[in-house]
Amino acid sequence: MPQDVKFDLPFDTPISEHLEHARARHLRWVWDRRLVRSQAGFEEYVSWDLPQAAARTYPHASAEDMVVLMNWFSLAFLFDDQFDASRPDRADRIADVARELIVTPLRPAGSTPRVDCPITMAWAEVWAHLSEGMSLAWRTRFAASWGRFLVAHTEEVDLAARGLAGTLGLEEYTEFRRRTVGIHHSIDAGERSRGFEVPAQVQAHPLMIRMRDLAADTIGFMNDIHSFEREKRRGDGHNLIAVLHRENRCTWEEAADEAFRMTTECLNQYLELEAQVPQMYDELGLDEDERDRVRMGIEAIQHWINGNYEWALTSGRYAADKQGPASAAELAGRGSVDDLLTV
Amino acid sequence: MPQDVKFDLPFDTPISEHLEHARARHLRWVWDRRLVRSQAGFEEYVSWDLPQAAARTYPHASAEDMVVLMNWFSLAFLFDDQFDASRPDRADRIADVARELIVTPLRPAGSTPRVDCPITMAWAEVWAHLSEGMSLAWRTRFAASWGRFLVAHTEEVDLAARGLAGTLGLEEYTEFRRRTVGIHHSIDAGERSRGFEVPAQVQAHPLMIRMRDLAADTIGFMNDIHSFEREKRRGDGHNLIAVLHRENRCTWEEAADEAFRMTTECLNQYLELEAQVPQMYDELGLDEDERDRVRMGIEAIQHWINGNYEWALTSGRYAADKQGPASAAELAGRGSVDDLLTV
Repeated sequence: MPQDVKFDLPFDTPISEHLEHARARHLRWVWDRRLVRSQAGFEEYVSWDLPQAAARTYPHASAEDMVVLMNWFSLAFLFDDQFDASRPDRADRIADVARELIVTPLRPAGSTPRVDCPITMAWAEVWAHLSEGMSLAWRTRFAASWGRFLVAHTEEVDLAARGLAGTLGLEEYTEFRRRTVGIHHSIDAGERSRGFEVPAQVQAHPLMIRMRDLAADTIGFMNDIHSFEREKRRGDGHNLIAVLHRENRCTWEEAADEAFRMTTECLNQYLELEAQVPQMYDELGLDEDERDRVRMGIEAIQHWINGNYEWALTSGRYAADKQGPASAAELAGRGSVDDLLTV
Repeated sequence: MPQDVKFDLPFDTPISEHLEHARARHLRWVWDRRLVRSQAGFEEYVSWDLPQAAARTYPHASAEDMVVLMNWFSLAFLFDDQFDASRPDRADRIADVARELIVTPLRPAGSTPRVDCPITMAWAEVWAHLSEGMSLAWRTRFAASWGRFLVAHTEEVDLAARGLAGTLGLEEYTEFRRRTVGIHHSIDAGERSRGFEVPAQVQAHPLMIRMRDLAADTIGFMNDIHSFEREKRRGDGHNLIAVLHRENRCTWEEAADEAFRMTTECLNQYLELEAQVPQMYDELGLDEDERDRVRMGIEAIQHWINGNYEWALTSGRYAADKQGPASAAELAGRGSVDDLLTV
């Protein structure tokens, strides 16, 4: 099943020409900032190929920005794995670190974190660069998108710590997944990566809000399908296939088929809304420059849907058959090889 | 000096007809929610007359909303006083509570707080009501305004805990004060109190951003003047008069005069920008309904400048000559009579 499930996506998105150059600089940074602390952790990290994900989701970023975007991905993905099922007390430390990550964009850029660990230090550095040149409206939107994601992540960890990971019903899970997938801030970052901003009245328009939500649903469900083997290995019950299997009392294969159908439906709904965008131009009386910025904003969504998909098909992160320290750690209930929440 | 310093404000703002009715309900709520825990704490709280402040700053709120706005004021002002100079270790608990207050608007409304104390419980309840019916754009803006304020508040407490409260230079202090005064989210709440929203493109416009900042500066400086005696009693060095006294090596009276001059200058700058608003209407091509909402948004700022001023002149919070448990606590370096950060 899973990692090789193909979707028929109607987008053709570019990949950054800076990939290889940025990858080398990024991997040095990951070591320097102690985001990996062991050879095994480094090898596992390299196998995920996050530089490819960044190069596909932000294809228009400059060479320098591309490195920073990769750096950002590394701390977000690595933080995601810090929960250790055998140590439920870790949930409090994760909540502390998550709150620190939330407040960073609410401080003047360049401030020193109040909670000190490799993840928080790395984020303060990345945010100083990522926020550069962006308006107050964008920083406000990004801070809220990012904050909502991290709060939801903390809830996910809390549920796991209390042994309740596999108890959400389908409707509840669907709503929860939209919050944990972290797509809203990822799309926001697309504006920074290409040096433009979607007009504020468009971001506030119900059509754009709904499109962003549907993109998040599509990507979240796709990710659940592609990461299913990994999450089964980790004992993580927060996965659409697992929810459907339990809720519908069906086989794993039937659950996977239904997850596929639901994903396709989200994508189709998204595409229907995309077709309504020209009406919104007229309704809001946008001029040519504003329309251009909306078009780039929609491309940022497409880059995410397609780029994330292309990357997930081959990333070592979601590989079904896996050996070595990372999968041994996962099978033992540990989230990751390295502890990144202590100094 | 201080509490009786008069400014010449060109606004004439109304006061809510629901004041007395709401005050009675609010005071019961404050007891019920354990936001005051002693008779002395209650008497001190009553002397502040926060209901008057809410009735002046949100004159158009419904009877029910007025109670909730008063409830909100109570937890914000009471939290502000929880730092205890004799117990610097309290700074960590204050940071914990502040972070919880920050994340509340980033969760689905009605969620249970993760940090449990009277302040956080009260805020979760207030936020569920305060966010009702408001758009995603408003909730995003409010969450960021509120978060920036609480992060700055934590920094203020941290500086005090390290004995560095009186070390900021004038420029640094001015910038810091804009963040600690908490006016941006207070103005945001004006929209909720009257059931409208300022168009997103106006909130993103440099003119409106600058007007909001200048309103914050004006109110922050006025507050520094009116609360000077209280803060001297409390040993709080975060006050414009204290900064000017130190920085300019001048007498207290000269420092107070200079603070007055700076405040008036901020107000005048604000008024100059207000006069430019009609040009913004044309630039953004706003229709009549949108212009109405901008006008109400500007009234919300005026209600805050004027309402806060009128309230501060008579509030027992800033009284120079004060006896009883509250001033005894303050003179002993304790922020408040009651501890609200524990269950």
